[in-house]
Amino acid sequence: MKELSYAVRQGAMAFLRREFITLAIFTAVMVLILALLIEPKPWVALAYFFGTLTSALAGFLGMSIATRANARTANAAIVSWARALKLAFSSGAVMGFCVVGLGLLGLTILSIFFEDIHVWLGFAFGATSVALFLRVGGGIFTKSADVGADLVGKIEKGIPEDDPRNAAVIADQVGDNVGDIAGMGSDLYESYVSALAAAMVLGVIAFQTKGMLLPLILGAIGIVASIIGVLVVRPREFEGSFEKQVSKAHATMNRGVYVSNILMIIAAYFAITGYMGNEGLNIFWALIVGLICGFLIGQVTEYFTSEHKPVLGIAKASETGPAINIMEGLFVGMLSTAIPIVLIAATTVAAFYFAGLLGIAIAAVGMLINLGMLLAMDCYGPIADNAAGIAEMAGLGKEVRARTEALDAVGNTTAALGKGFAVSSAALAALAWLATYFEVANIEIASITNVDVIAGLFIGTMMTFLFCALAMKGVSGGAFDVVKEVRRQFKEIKGLMEGEAKPDYMSCVDIATKRALKSMLLPGILVIIIPLIIGFTLGTEAVAGLLVGALLTGLLVAIMMANSGGAWDNAKKYIEAGNLGGKGSEAHKAAVIGDTVGDPFKDTAGPSLNILIKLVGKIAVIFAPLFLLFD
Amino acid sequence: MKELSYAVRQGAMAFLRREFITLAIFTAVMVLILALLIEPKPWVALAYFFGTLTSALAGFLGMSIATRANARTANAAIVSWARALKLAFSSGAVMGFCVVGLGLLGLTILSIFFEDIHVWLGFAFGATSVALFLRVGGGIFTKSADVGADLVGKIEKGIPEDDPRNAAVIADQVGDNVGDIAGMGSDLYESYVSALAAAMVLGVIAFQTKGMLLPLILGAIGIVASIIGVLVVRPREFEGSFEKQVSKAHATMNRGVYVSNILMIIAAYFAITGYMGNEGLNIFWALIVGLICGFLIGQVTEYFTSEHKPVLGIAKASETGPAINIMEGLFVGMLSTAIPIVLIAATTVAAFYFAGLLGIAIAAVGMLINLGMLLAMDCYGPIADNAAGIAEMAGLGKEVRARTEALDAVGNTTAALGKGFAVSSAALAALAWLATYFEVANIEIASITNVDVIAGLFIGTMMTFLFCALAMKGVSGGAFDVVKEVRRQFKEIKGLMEGEAKPDYMSCVDIATKRALKSMLLPGILVIIIPLIIGFTLGTEAVAGLLVGALLTGLLVAIMMANSGGAWDNAKKYIEAGNLGGKGSEAHKAAVIGDTVGDPFKDTAGPSLNILIKLVGKIAVIFAPLFLLFD
Repeated sequence: MKELSYAVRQGAMAFLRREFITLAIFTAVMVLILALLIEPKPWVALAYFFGTLTSALAGFLGMSIATRANARTANAAIVSWARALKLAFSSGAVMGFCVVGLGLLGLTILSIFFEDIHVWLGFAFGATSVALFLRVGGGIFTKSADVGADLVGKIEKGIPEDDPRNAAVIADQVGDNVGDIAGMGSDLYESYVSALAAAMVLGVIAFQTKGMLLPLILGAIGIVASIIGVLVVRPREFEGSFEKQVSKAHATMNRGVYVSNILMIIAAYFAITGYMGNEGLNIFWALIVGLICGFLIGQVTEYFTSEHKPVLGIAKASETGPAINIMEGLFVGMLSTAIPIVLIAATTVAAFYFAGLLGIAIAAVGMLINLGMLLAMDCYGPIADNAAGIAEMAGLGKEVRARTEALDAVGNTTAALGKGFAVSSAALAALAWLATYFEVANIEIASITNVDVIAGLFIGTMMTFLFCALAMKGVSGGAFDVVKEVRRQFKEIKGLMEGEAKPDYMSCVDIATKRALKSMLLPGILVIIIPLIIGFTLGTEAVAGLLVGALLTGLLVAIMMANSGGAWDNAKKYIEAGNLGGKGSEAHKAAVIGDTVGDPFKDTAGPSLNILIKLVGKIAVIFAPLFLLFD
Repeated sequence: MKELSYAVRQGAMAFLRREFITLAIFTAVMVLILALLIEPKPWVALAYFFGTLTSALAGFLGMSIATRANARTANAAIVSWARALKLAFSSGAVMGFCVVGLGLLGLTILSIFFEDIHVWLGFAFGATSVALFLRVGGGIFTKSADVGADLVGKIEKGIPEDDPRNAAVIADQVGDNVGDIAGMGSDLYESYVSALAAAMVLGVIAFQTKGMLLPLILGAIGIVASIIGVLVVRPREFEGSFEKQVSKAHATMNRGVYVSNILMIIAAYFAITGYMGNEGLNIFWALIVGLICGFLIGQVTEYFTSEHKPVLGIAKASETGPAINIMEGLFVGMLSTAIPIVLIAATTVAAFYFAGLLGIAIAAVGMLINLGMLLAMDCYGPIADNAAGIAEMAGLGKEVRARTEALDAVGNTTAALGKGFAVSSAALAALAWLATYFEVANIEIASITNVDVIAGLFIGTMMTFLFCALAMKGVSGGAFDVVKEVRRQFKEIKGLMEGEAKPDYMSCVDIATKRALKSMLLPGILVIIIPLIIGFTLGTEAVAGLLVGALLTGLLVAIMMANSGGAWDNAKKYIEAGNLGGKGSEAHKAAVIGDTVGDPFKDTAGPSLNILIKLVGKIAVIFAPLFLLFD
């Protein structure tokens, strides 16, 4: 067990090392560009550097703790259910507090030394660059390994999911850490920092220094509330059926969420109304609007991706074969966008009604303020998943595996909720940056009666699909490479299939890493260059159109992909639980195909769009002063 | 053969009869609403009625000729290749001239009696309602029948595609006529009338009566050029390999396209510059911009859906199984949107640069002016397809079937081009109506710095996926019903599988018709009601946002779906031609699954979005005077 855990940790570090080398080159180039072009020189460039550093640090710390936690959780499960749950959750909490702590600390330090909005924005931009690498690169890595491992292992060779004879199995587990922990963490770090930075910028414009400090105060309240929430999660020893274990674990963690939310609301109410005087109440309502929006989107996500009508519909459709399964899954994903989009539109209108452009940024802060607690739950999922994998691979006893599987099942729900939350917080953060862009680029009006704005909207829309297409291609290409390598090892390493020899795990990690870095290059460059081209040719208003176009379609497609993917996954699990013929039936085969298509949807292309919609906003805001010179 | 052709004709008429009854009720309600609410009363209502009437007539005439042409083409193929080609093409031409003739005649009559823009707009709105029924209802019908027939026939029973023992086979053929001829025809009739009407409105605002007449003059030039183009298509007797027959047929028809285009450009140049004086040259350039845009999008469509790198990539991916085939197909579809979207954005900017808002409408006219000729080619496809089906079902000789199959292969390319053209012309027509909306609703500025506009954009975007999801669901539900019925017949009718008894074809037609009408109800109502709700609550500027949101995402998704579907189809055909293992291989099975998913993409959901983006514009323009009362 130690050996496997060590291999996963080694693989993860090998991936991170290579990513960080590429990221370092990318950062050096960006720092140089910012130092030469963007005022106040070189402080924006340094803040950017500081932003990449803290973000990378948060990702690195979280991941190294999580990779250690995997095996320890499996180990703890031998002794006790409560100990395993506690271990997985508190390891997730470490990631959560790394993220919010470093984010808030970084912005606080900057706000002490510089009362210059461009410096704060530079810091947030730095966080985005790391998120691009970890979320997009990590997403391509994890799904190349996962799909590749399944295609050869489960389908060709008929061996179980986490069988140690499969050369890609370690790469798959590395991917879970890289994509779901480091990727999700850096994505949410980015949203958190972005929302706070945008609120500081819009706050300082509306209320001077007071407005700058308010978001930081809210951030501090959120951290304290989250800490208390995490402390409240104290699982007690529990025995019971699988379903009861799942619901008990869920209830235990939910208690923490409720406590931290209630504390936060009370504290925020007194802090805002006390500190901001008459304006305070309106700002407080904007915060609450964001919080409610996040909660409701979570409920919708839960409905569409857990065992309710949509998932059962996909499972039923699987009986007519894979084609109808795919159609039904796409239908569910598309349908599931309607309510979240209306909610985000309503939140925007309501937040603006309460507190203008600042209100939109405050709504984003409201959604993200308890991130410490939420990330603890999000990261719990992959840790429990990996612990279950390790328990399987190490051949632990039946009872232990039942425990880790129950913990894993809870993780699936928290992970789906986490994805819904990542998308909606990205949308609100992106809206906050849109508002910031209007201020920074002095845009009072960007009318859709203006053809340049229309052209910008078209280009922004188009970028979404282009970005998404390239991410999907990265996965199918990567999976293809991994399949070839696993097949090669089965053929060339004697005694592998019989369990007498060991596969070369690292070569699969290496192949998937290379493909991930290669595949993210083009989308990464396009997403930076296209806004610049539009800015320098069609002007600042067209860029505003581009941001809106990317946000609209990006949000739509991200929700659809996350929910289609989640629903396919759970439809498969529903059949595997023995329904509609169970494992091995024709319906199951069809459901496996749907799940495989859904994998890059929910873990690569969908989440990558979160980064896209935030990154274009950053580029636009940072380079707005240059666009204005050309206007 | 006669019997089969008769059954198809009967089925098609049964479908149309039921559609037209529902349409009549819908029209009566709309006429009443318009007569009560929209000035000048009751002329807008009557123009609307007149619009539905001409559009329905064009669809009905085209379809009844086409259904007769199917068997006659198969019959002609017994005698000679040239005669079959000539027959299929000239039957398509009848449809083409019905469409453009009725459209131009209708608008000319109205412009003589009423110099009131609202009356012209009412006429175009009528055409849209029919298109909604024929394109969306027809799309759901055709793919329910097609997918249902294939799932039982090809996959479960292992009988060939057009085998007469399959109870859904006639419904499938009816669907080809209904979806591809009547549906495509009413869609393009709508675009044609919309583009002309928008140009008349924007023309009369800019240049008074002269501006109103110009689009009608251009329309007349287009008809004359198209007639000459059609007359130039004179296939000569030809013998040769399959490939040579295909390319010969293609070349024969292309000659007509080139001749009509060149004639049109020359005539339009003299007409516009002569009639409009100094302003003329700019208007002429706007026309040319639209024409070029249509041509280039056709080229891109051809690249992504014929035997080039993308299609071969999908075929290759099929070797790794259905999941990778699906991913690759989605990738191709998403990637294929980039250039068309940039082209449409560039066309918008260029046309506006040349001639303002009117320029955008003129660009749409430029794209659609030779519609008579283009529709002849578009309708040729399904006629040739059905002739090949009839030749197969009637068991005609090998040589005859080789001929009809070669003609069918050309039809696949013209059909793919037709789909690309339908999307791009819908986009330009929708843009022209957006411009019209700005004028009618007195919108000078609808800024994306305004949260109401942002909310409108979000809602418009969301509508696309909602509409698309419901259309897809109609197909999967319809296919499910058809599968049940075909299975029942195989079980209950004795001697059916042995060819001793006949299936009940009409019951499948009936089932698919019912499902189509039922499934289009909700999307049809939503697309009308949502813009009204936004208009009455958030106001005219939010509606402008909604139109743009629907247009952006609708165009994007429509292109993606049409091209993914087309590419999957041709990847399957490529494998069936003997590559990568040919028919019966694992790769083929995977490709069949991709093709089945692609069917509702390219023939239902994708084309339905054309209607969506045009229909929301109509609703907005027609009801704008009422929104203004509430503003």
